[in-house]
Amino acid sequence: METKRVVVLGAGFAGLHAVRALSGKPGVEVVLVDRNNHHLFQPLLYQVATAGLEAPQIAFPIRAFLRRRNNVRFLMGNAEGVEPRERVLWVEGQPVPYDYLVVGTGSRTHDFGLPGVAEYGLGLKSLDDAMKIRDRILSACEEAVRTSDPERRRALLTFVVAGGGPTGVELAGALGELRRHVIARDYPDLSPKEVRIVLIEAAPHLLSAFSPGSRAYAQGFLQSLGVELYLNERVVELTPGLVRLHSGRSIPSFTVIWSAGITGQALPGLPTTRGQRVATAPGLHLPDHPSIYVVGDLNYLEGPGGRPYPQVAPTAMQQGALAAKNILRSLRGEPPVAFRYKDKGSMATLGRSQAIAEMGPLKLRGSLAWGAWLAVHLYYLIGFRNRMMVLSNWAYSYFTYDFAVRIMHHRHVFPTPREAPIC
Amino acid sequence: METKRVVVLGAGFAGLHAVRALSGKPGVEVVLVDRNNHHLFQPLLYQVATAGLEAPQIAFPIRAFLRRRNNVRFLMGNAEGVEPRERVLWVEGQPVPYDYLVVGTGSRTHDFGLPGVAEYGLGLKSLDDAMKIRDRILSACEEAVRTSDPERRRALLTFVVAGGGPTGVELAGALGELRRHVIARDYPDLSPKEVRIVLIEAAPHLLSAFSPGSRAYAQGFLQSLGVELYLNERVVELTPGLVRLHSGRSIPSFTVIWSAGITGQALPGLPTTRGQRVATAPGLHLPDHPSIYVVGDLNYLEGPGGRPYPQVAPTAMQQGALAAKNILRSLRGEPPVAFRYKDKGSMATLGRSQAIAEMGPLKLRGSLAWGAWLAVHLYYLIGFRNRMMVLSNWAYSYFTYDFAVRIMHHRHVFPTPREAPIC
Repeated sequence: METKRVVVLGAGFAGLHAVRALSGKPGVEVVLVDRNNHHLFQPLLYQVATAGLEAPQIAFPIRAFLRRRNNVRFLMGNAEGVEPRERVLWVEGQPVPYDYLVVGTGSRTHDFGLPGVAEYGLGLKSLDDAMKIRDRILSACEEAVRTSDPERRRALLTFVVAGGGPTGVELAGALGELRRHVIARDYPDLSPKEVRIVLIEAAPHLLSAFSPGSRAYAQGFLQSLGVELYLNERVVELTPGLVRLHSGRSIPSFTVIWSAGITGQALPGLPTTRGQRVATAPGLHLPDHPSIYVVGDLNYLEGPGGRPYPQVAPTAMQQGALAAKNILRSLRGEPPVAFRYKDKGSMATLGRSQAIAEMGPLKLRGSLAWGAWLAVHLYYLIGFRNRMMVLSNWAYSYFTYDFAVRIMHHRHVFPTPREAPIC
Repeated sequence: METKRVVVLGAGFAGLHAVRALSGKPGVEVVLVDRNNHHLFQPLLYQVATAGLEAPQIAFPIRAFLRRRNNVRFLMGNAEGVEPRERVLWVEGQPVPYDYLVVGTGSRTHDFGLPGVAEYGLGLKSLDDAMKIRDRILSACEEAVRTSDPERRRALLTFVVAGGGPTGVELAGALGELRRHVIARDYPDLSPKEVRIVLIEAAPHLLSAFSPGSRAYAQGFLQSLGVELYLNERVVELTPGLVRLHSGRSIPSFTVIWSAGITGQALPGLPTTRGQRVATAPGLHLPDHPSIYVVGDLNYLEGPGGRPYPQVAPTAMQQGALAAKNILRSLRGEPPVAFRYKDKGSMATLGRSQAIAEMGPLKLRGSLAWGAWLAVHLYYLIGFRNRMMVLSNWAYSYFTYDFAVRIMHHRHVFPTPREAPIC
């Protein structure tokens, strides 16, 4: 039997699950393409951004993952476009022909076209993003130490999070812990009272995907941590030193983390629909080009309720696995299986030892929910044999929170008062 | 008694030892200034550069070090100059007055004015340097996977180290191990035979500071690891893709690590002498301004043999401690004590489990030397209570060498053949 080549574009949750299901299968060779050399465990990006974990602890080299997968090769590069009729993926000027293509390029930060957000907002979708946020926060604290002007000092120590979904809530909680534990102890020249943490959300409540009880719990937790909640509020513009809000209010701040929305990262050659996502048939392939599968955040497929499946990790993992399964079925001449989403529920951490977790009727809160969160995330760490090592690694960092995770790599230079009027 | 202020500039070995000796002393307040927020354990920088350790494992947040040192404050910023008569240190436009100043700003990479070295050579004096080298090496391997042109492929996989002192030898050894263990196993598309590692040294032998026996041992080790030794050879020019040598030979390479020399990092206001170092009296203060002490790599002081003390870590640590002691003596009206260098010997690792170590008549080689190297470096880890944590941290990374330490942060874009002719 002639060997067929499957090209998997993107080494995120979707892509790696597809690779895992195809590795070792006879008659199939796989080429995994990604612009980075590592898989990023995105659920913990916010920890790197708030100096709770170090970057290497959530990034896994792709080549290590492929070590025993002998029918899988890795090609590092940026994909420029796809030619569905020729069955060619273009990677940095080189053609990569395929028999099947699985596109799992995910999503990127969405600025909604709002002025200043792309330039001054800090997204959180990559390691670089996370390091940038962390360096910004640490730089702001160090500069505040040297600043006597109270207005400028206040703006330096005001950290704004736009977007009250799980990411925003986790960020705000982590910032609250940073203030309470790190700033209080390591910055004798600063008072934690000088630090403001503001979470902005357009809806009347945080965490739309959760039940009212969990929302209230999360809200209460954040408020007890001193996070200011601006609900029913939207950002309309960002300038270098100011956040302008819909209500007319404004917040002087040099650090605005933008977690208010994502949009698909398609590539030329693929038709896009709402949210820059790519619509597929229930079997996850393009209706016009059944050799192309789209999985994960980039995929647009409506469920029984008429709503598209959520852009979360479980969707990506399940779709990656199904695309691989359908490719193998296709090779055997069998029809594809329709995607059936298994709702694994929703979780969000609250600070360093609490969380909310819901799955169907089961609703957990507090430390128990946090334990569940940890167990689930460890389990889903893409089947690395070294889950134990990662667990001990995280535990080490977590319990030595007071120790080592605050290296600033690149200092941020804040605009001068003239460049960034605060009033 | 009025409190006197000691400003310590530089949180390297010298500065931190000075701070340690001054902390808790009555009548003294200390301001520690550094342009980074962390102390860098430089002896292990080469490990980060060759993907053997991660950056956070050798960088220690200064604020954590100062946690219980109540008479010490930290100010992060670039020092711009000093006014000895006014006793003011200028830090980013702000005057920092002092009663005593301890300058431990260290050294930086020296390019000897050779064309192309500053632009194309990769120094190894900071975390940024190390990360850059590592990203370069990993990028080169990934690009080689995608390159069919054998000449370009060869140049991508040729790694040159200029300078056969301990740093160069350690780098070359680590690169040899990377080839043997990592490239062989994780890059099925590359053959280790395609990888060249070249070490260039101007003298007829490596490691001038060591005995002939140790030199021969090191040389034999590197050769058995497949490192090509170009002795009696010097770099005369670097271009984007070529290393030009004094003998007329040239080596096509895109990665040239420059460890051939260092020069002092003085600051405006201080008089410099040979090697851009600052000459002091035997008590480590400036003859004309006894309130200013210079310690570590920046210090120039001749020993009994007429030669300046070596720019190594033990010198820095001993001088930092003595400067503090002399300041305290000065406060009590006592005369300063002259610096007496305790030669702690020399060490250099060879690959991952061997080393050479000499102290006076004692000469060790192999695994025993490596054990001694480890013990010494742990001991001198600046008195952190968490030596045990650091040890387990390193041990973890070391023994999971095959696991996780090869995240590429920023991809390097190699010049095209037209931009960098190799022939």
